Amino acid sequence: MNLKNVSCRVVAVLAVDDPAHFRTGAVAGLNLDLQGIFGDRHRGFTRRAGAREPWYPRGSEMRSGRQVSLVSVEELAEVARRLEIPVLEAGWIGANVVLEGLPDLTGLPWGTRLVFSGGAVLVNEGENAPCRFAGAEVARHFPARAGLDRLFAKAAVHLRGILARVELAGAIAPGAVTLRMAKQRDWKGGGLL
Amino acid sequence: MNLKNVSCRVVAVLAVDDPAHFRTGAVAGLNLDLQGIFGDRHRGFTRRAGAREPWYPRGSEMRSGRQVSLVSVEELAEVARRLEIPVLEAGWIGANVVLEGLPDLTGLPWGTRLVFSGGAVLVNEGENAPCRFAGAEVARHFPARAGLDRLFAKAAVHLRGILARVELAGAIAPGAVTLRMAKQRDWKGGGLL
Repeated sequence: MNLKNVSCRVVAVLAVDDPAHFRTGAVAGLNLDLQGIFGDRHRGFTRRAGAREPWYPRGSEMRSGRQVSLVSVEELAEVARRLEIPVLEAGWIGANVVLEGLPDLTGLPWGTRLVFSGGAVLVNEGENAPCRFAGAEVARHFPARAGLDRLFAKAAVHLRGILARVELAGAIAPGAVTLRMAKQRDWKGGGLL
Repeated sequence: MNLKNVSCRVVAVLAVDDPAHFRTGAVAGLNLDLQGIFGDRHRGFTRRAGAREPWYPRGSEMRSGRQVSLVSVEELAEVARRLEIPVLEAGWIGANVVLEGLPDLTGLPWGTRLVFSGGAVLVNEGENAPCRFAGAEVARHFPARAGLDRLFAKAAVHLRGILARVELAGAIAPGAVTLRMAKQRDWKGGGLL
């Protein structure tokens, strides 16, 4: 069903400008096909397993669900507050889409579809994990603050936004987003967790 | 994290024998690559939108998350009980993998990884919807029972098992399954549903 009681919108879209780095910079819009963002290092139906999948042999070819990184204005502000820095730019941590108006983006149920006014549809593949590379980029902007890279990794837990795959090709540009999610119900085996 | 307190195992694997039909029959094992099951109609990174995605123009190319259909012994038995039939065979409804020992397979959280002893890893893409085609195949085995096709579609809601994509290539054969799921937490925007 569609979420009707939330006004969620894209306020910025970003893409990598230097393929050697994960930093992103503002662009007018993104055109996505089913493999992701043209020219992006995360483009592809498959990818190599890395440090985030310690359970797979490093370098194994695996199906990829992380074409696009989404963050929210509200969560970025909360991380900045925790780090006691005046601002945390989405581009420093390699985000592609900045949303506003959706509570708890990082906790959004897996499988939720984000339908953009430009036609693209993304599927939420779950929360992004803060890493020290992103932390190092944040720290680079505040050279007087020792240890900010590690601090970022802690402060951004459950506030780092989500990763998503492209379900339907199309564009993403500033404007409204509709959210469609499966009816949530508790797993009856939950006591096993 | 891995689910430790559940003993889940594959008791049967099935594949399509006649590509013109979705019925499946028992095989010794399945070999999967990242696109799915060789020779299966659901094989591929992408598929065409159909009746299950009324929100997309019919025939649109979309990313596919439904390479493999999984059902459970316990849920099949419950549907059979509701339909008052002596048995509901997994192959009648096109299943590829029959599991035993996992409570509430259909309600398993999205994104849960199923790690098979043959090396394949599947990602849960959510519950399968009962359809009248599967119902018609069930009904064909009980010609004396009028309306069993529609009845199936009702009786199997939340008991139809799950669809999954292949995350790591490998085999699936009878034997143990390990389940790895993200820590579940409630979405703080849940009141909007």
